Amino acid sequence: MPVINPNLLVIEPREMVKMGAEILITNAYIIYKKEELREEALKKGVHSLLKWDKPLMTDSGSYQLYEYGDLEISNSDIIDFQMRVGSDIITPLDIPTPPFVSRRKALKDLEATLERMEEAKRLFSASAEAAAEGGCESSGEVGGGSESGGRGSREGGAKGEASALLAGVVQGSTYLDLREESAKRLAAMQFDIYAIGGVVPLLELYEFGRIMDIIATAKMNLPLNAPVHLFGAGHPMFFSFAVALGCDLFDSAAYAIYAKDKRYLTSEGTLYAEDLNYLPCSCPVCASHSAKEVRESVELLAAHNLYVAFEEMRVVKQSIVEGTLWELCERRARSHPSLMDALRRLTKYVDFIERLDPVTKHPFFYLSETCASRPEVRRFAGMLERFKLRGKVLLTTFPLNEGEAARRMEQEGYEHVLVVKPPFGAFPIELAETYPVGQSEIPNEIDEHAKEVALEHVLRLMRLNRDAKFFVECDERWANMKKMEEVKKIASEFVLRGDDEECEEG
Amino acid sequence: MPVINPNLLVIEPREMVKMGAEILITNAYIIYKKEELREEALKKGVHSLLKWDKPLMTDSGSYQLYEYGDLEISNSDIIDFQMRVGSDIITPLDIPTPPFVSRRKALKDLEATLERMEEAKRLFSASAEAAAEGGCESSGEVGGGSESGGRGSREGGAKGEASALLAGVVQGSTYLDLREESAKRLAAMQFDIYAIGGVVPLLELYEFGRIMDIIATAKMNLPLNAPVHLFGAGHPMFFSFAVALGCDLFDSAAYAIYAKDKRYLTSEGTLYAEDLNYLPCSCPVCASHSAKEVRESVELLAAHNLYVAFEEMRVVKQSIVEGTLWELCERRARSHPSLMDALRRLTKYVDFIERLDPVTKHPFFYLSETCASRPEVRRFAGMLERFKLRGKVLLTTFPLNEGEAARRMEQEGYEHVLVVKPPFGAFPIELAETYPVGQSEIPNEIDEHAKEVALEHVLRLMRLNRDAKFFVECDERWANMKKMEEVKKIASEFVLRGDDEECEEG
Repeated sequence: MPVINPNLLVIEPREMVKMGAEILITNAYIIYKKEELREEALKKGVHSLLKWDKPLMTDSGSYQLYEYGDLEISNSDIIDFQMRVGSDIITPLDIPTPPFVSRRKALKDLEATLERMEEAKRLFSASAEAAAEGGCESSGEVGGGSESGGRGSREGGAKGEASALLAGVVQGSTYLDLREESAKRLAAMQFDIYAIGGVVPLLELYEFGRIMDIIATAKMNLPLNAPVHLFGAGHPMFFSFAVALGCDLFDSAAYAIYAKDKRYLTSEGTLYAEDLNYLPCSCPVCASHSAKEVRESVELLAAHNLYVAFEEMRVVKQSIVEGTLWELCERRARSHPSLMDALRRLTKYVDFIERLDPVTKHPFFYLSETCASRPEVRRFAGMLERFKLRGKVLLTTFPLNEGEAARRMEQEGYEHVLVVKPPFGAFPIELAETYPVGQSEIPNEIDEHAKEVALEHVLRLMRLNRDAKFFVECDERWANMKKMEEVKKIASEFVLRGDDEECEEG
Repeated sequence: MPVINPNLLVIEPREMVKMGAEILITNAYIIYKKEELREEALKKGVHSLLKWDKPLMTDSGSYQLYEYGDLEISNSDIIDFQMRVGSDIITPLDIPTPPFVSRRKALKDLEATLERMEEAKRLFSASAEAAAEGGCESSGEVGGGSESGGRGSREGGAKGEASALLAGVVQGSTYLDLREESAKRLAAMQFDIYAIGGVVPLLELYEFGRIMDIIATAKMNLPLNAPVHLFGAGHPMFFSFAVALGCDLFDSAAYAIYAKDKRYLTSEGTLYAEDLNYLPCSCPVCASHSAKEVRESVELLAAHNLYVAFEEMRVVKQSIVEGTLWELCERRARSHPSLMDALRRLTKYVDFIERLDPVTKHPFFYLSETCASRPEVRRFAGMLERFKLRGKVLLTTFPLNEGEAARRMEQEGYEHVLVVKPPFGAFPIELAETYPVGQSEIPNEIDEHAKEVALEHVLRLMRLNRDAKFFVECDERWANMKKMEEVKKIASEFVLRGDDEECEEG
């Protein structure tokens, strides 16, 4: 959702449709404060004010509350105003608590925010009842000064304001238990949309790891079937991570703010426009202007920045279709060390992700140590418990095909042949073609960590099948690993073998 | 250089200028074989044939030789033809040896290729002399059947064919010693441009690690001031790696070939067009068409593919301006496990890169274990030898600012204060603001490998300064590292300290 400042349209909303916009967000408090905007919004609706006939979310002015400490309007009044001007998604006036404040302040702010959320729910229900009683027209009671109803000019309009959606805002500063409390209590109130607030200062500090904790804590305690909005996250470099933890909506004032500062956004970071010798982008702005032209124009920079944000959203969506969102996060993590922290933090929530992750998808790509903690690896480890092994078992670190395995089973009398593949562990040759082991690509030179994780799983399998006799064969590099000592202790036989294939020459 | 098939223009050369093309490559053999093309090229020049007035390189048909085993033309004839039609960069008819052939075959092919290169040099010199003798017009001798001179219609034309550049082609299959031999002997012959041939089958096999070895071996034995072309490397996912090892020119038939196969290129891999639900790109094609339209059109796919290739070239160029090419490779490496091999291979040539790498640049980003092998780290380690330490030396793993360091030097009587920062090692507090230690960003949770590399450098520093008395203080995680045992042995005092900052609460 591009953020529209009704006082200053850097890009006209109708232009944004061409760029990919399907929904906008604007600030109800800014409209309310300026008489001419307020009057027009009350008279013709906020959609008409912005010349926009698609969905529109309104914010409540809580950011202004955060910046200036005081507002000229109450929670109930700003909610009422949002309803009267025909907003599609209404935000109560939450209290955005900064990060790293005292626990006492965070708790006090949170209680106040939750009271306001309850008030919002009451007002909203009352409005819905009144609308139901009053039929199609909004009632004089709730819609008070509304002249003709804000949504009158829209498709499906005049349904009464209560057909809008209400957002509940999660607060709690950097205290994860307060974030949890906040999410649970909002979930009990049943909002249409949940928004995570108070993260902008953390985004500005590049505290991406902490933001991941906050998102995960909220998401794990909110209804899984409701959209989650991450308030103020407008830089495309973070979209993939937030989506990986379950965020669905973003708003971006970044396109305009960065442009004003002469900064050029990319999905992999921010460049100073003055440093641009080449335009690392093919968007319509960059394809039809020189680097010099883009460097010097706030309008061109804003348009480019918005194109890039929409492009990244499509990149994320396409990666979900393909089942490659983790791979996308791996790539984006290499844009900044702080995003590496975000990636690492993703692995902390892998059990939560694993429960919801599709069972099969695009081939598994091993791209770094963090991939050893991916949900697919976790799930594969869980499958181990279902393997029942008995008799002579061959465990090999050499890649065997099914034919070779069958031959050895017959000639050497094995009941089972298991092949070790990092980072998964040992898989029975019968599963060689199945996801994930059969559809996984690993580098020729894989890191030690992946092999250690594989050996951990091997050890677990051996311990779960005490009756089986394990014959282990491996090459020298595997043999030198610490964990292999433990494997040796359990194995009935251990053979160190050269890599035949490598020795031959064509 | 987009590859133009003169028989089949998927995109008109003049359209390519808008997309960013500044130079094209076409196949002289294909033109030669088809009478109508040959006649027109001889009469009006190859630029006129393709309606292209910018630089143009011609290939010799060696790919066809590779594919079909035999050609209807000799090396001297195809060189003569390229000169007569006014090519700007001329390629002799080398013999592209496939990978993994026997050494005997690779050597035999290489000798034949080198003979042809020598022949090309002779023909080229003779032509230059003849042109010099004949003045501005090309001589009847060499330019034989040339009617009016191929370059007559061009800016700066009629200078005689010898003003073109001659490319020497490096072969040697997957034998690095033969690649070295090949590069050395070509370098002695002094070509204008050097091209690395025979890598297409490796690109198709995703054998990126091996290609890195081949490029590095060639580059280290070629003149550093001559451009190097990587023949047949047209997929944008590999550009950054090839450039990191010193390639300057690429040719791409990929844009058209992949489009014909209904494949959609990105800088991070290849997608099947039929899998596109969203277009992860903002190029003029993707910005103005639906995913469905793009999926179904070879022309749109080809145009998109070419836009992406040019975009990636600009991304690479801009990263060179910024000094962030390594970071770009880190990101691209996460597109495929085989590119991880390429990245790892880059670290094998870090001494070569270090010699040519700028001394200061963009802040150093630690993005993965491979970053511990970056040239900046290698160079920093080399600087160690210049530190002369004596008296009491504090070595700490806690980040100190200069004020704190000064206070401790005074109060605790240290001659030097050194701070350990992974992956660099220990730096004297006086260098806290200098590149690279002072301009480096590392994740909050950095991997063990970076810390091990840092400790190796610390140990080296301690051993180089046997007279100094080292007082080491570190936190628990550092203390638990294996290498810290060795540090302890040398240290006069070793203090395990809690992280004070972490214990305080706001």
